Amino acid sequence: MKNVLLTIEYDGTNFCGWQRQPAKRTVQGELEKVLSELCCMEVSLNGTSRTDAGVHALGQRASFKGDFAIPLAQIARAANNLLAAGNRHKTGDVRIKEVREMPLDFHARFDAKGKTYLYKLATGEAPSVFARNYSYFIKNSLDVALMRAAAAHIVGKQDFKCFEAAGGNPRETTVRTITALEVIETDGGITLAVTGDGFLYNMVRIITGTLVDVGSGRIKPDAIPDIIASRDRRNAGHTAPPQGLYLAEVFFDALPTP
Amino acid sequence: MKNVLLTIEYDGTNFCGWQRQPAKRTVQGELEKVLSELCCMEVSLNGTSRTDAGVHALGQRASFKGDFAIPLAQIARAANNLLAAGNRHKTGDVRIKEVREMPLDFHARFDAKGKTYLYKLATGEAPSVFARNYSYFIKNSLDVALMRAAAAHIVGKQDFKCFEAAGGNPRETTVRTITALEVIETDGGITLAVTGDGFLYNMVRIITGTLVDVGSGRIKPDAIPDIIASRDRRNAGHTAPPQGLYLAEVFFDALPTP
Repeated sequence: MKNVLLTIEYDGTNFCGWQRQPAKRTVQGELEKVLSELCCMEVSLNGTSRTDAGVHALGQRASFKGDFAIPLAQIARAANNLLAAGNRHKTGDVRIKEVREMPLDFHARFDAKGKTYLYKLATGEAPSVFARNYSYFIKNSLDVALMRAAAAHIVGKQDFKCFEAAGGNPRETTVRTITALEVIETDGGITLAVTGDGFLYNMVRIITGTLVDVGSGRIKPDAIPDIIASRDRRNAGHTAPPQGLYLAEVFFDALPTP
Repeated sequence: MKNVLLTIEYDGTNFCGWQRQPAKRTVQGELEKVLSELCCMEVSLNGTSRTDAGVHALGQRASFKGDFAIPLAQIARAANNLLAAGNRHKTGDVRIKEVREMPLDFHARFDAKGKTYLYKLATGEAPSVFARNYSYFIKNSLDVALMRAAAAHIVGKQDFKCFEAAGGNPRETTVRTITALEVIETDGGITLAVTGDGFLYNMVRIITGTLVDVGSGRIKPDAIPDIIASRDRRNAGHTAPPQGLYLAEVFFDALPTP
């Protein structure tokens, strides 16, 4: 029996999200189909994060257990060839970047210690057709200094119920620790980099919408502590759309080398 | 009667190229449908360049003539709203960037004095899922110095029959002038910028494939003059795929201000 950890990159545009669903094209579903074929067994993946439709990943993690004959070192290449089959450019929209063997008691979701998400905002006069599936277009510019002042109020261990959308799985607590929230100026706009020990349903997208509302003058940075204290979703900003969101990195305690 | 010149941006991924075709989604077809609706007349576009399926444009040009009521200043916004309808991110994959009124004898194809194309090469260990529709992935690196040496032999007024694919429209002559061919190092690879007074069928993609073959050591830069002199397609390099190619800019004699 082996326990295998995958690092996965995907363009979420043409997926109905991570989670397996009957008769829908999902990242988990596509990967399980291909891995089951290669391993000659039914593979069931535990993904770290259940990303929504349209959300991308640079470093999603998922683990699976099984007895199989294919050498670990060949899984990525063989799976990527199958995942790219049918794609005219010979690269699929999901790709396994790395494969590691882990101790049997390792679990990609339960053992994750934290995650970094990126959110890409594109600003300017008009949206670029090339960015439409990969960023959130905001007409005109955003005030980065205001956004940074608001971000500083979000960092820390706090009850973030105000940034939780309805419809997620029930949680024991809405207290989370945001260890970093950077507002980075880029060529075409602004990228937010959010790191925390865990995230509530749509939390990064609501934080982003709130910071956009701050950057465009609709919410004052000083109002953020009261918004958080209210624990009321209606007081926070809008929910930014999925296509600007990237699951960038998942943190674990020290991993064995691949 | 007005003569209207459009500047157009498109992501070619989901189009069967520029040119109108029955029962296929093409850029010309989508634009004509929307403009005909807005102008309450049958609009027929003259595009500068008939880009192939998968090829992108940052600055395609097209002109049309007609008597219509909608003010020129409203065409871009109204058309872009219609073009984005149905797209979940409210941005379509084709967008009108600018609209100008031109003298009645102006024609976007016949009056074009030259064009610049970009070709994006992505190099490295593994292809990114995000670049798959927007660049040509080359495993490992390419020798930029060799590519620049080869490019220098391509600049000038020459008979470029060796860089012409079969299947294009018949041409009176295969002599063209390439005024610039830059090899630009970028974050993720190399971008070629080719400017000329006109291009043969697939010429930029064959020049690109030839420079890739030079950069990877399969063709020597000094062999380029003989390849051109041979006027034989079989002596040039491979044809690079469409998804790395961008029609960047079209040049005319001085245009009236928009």
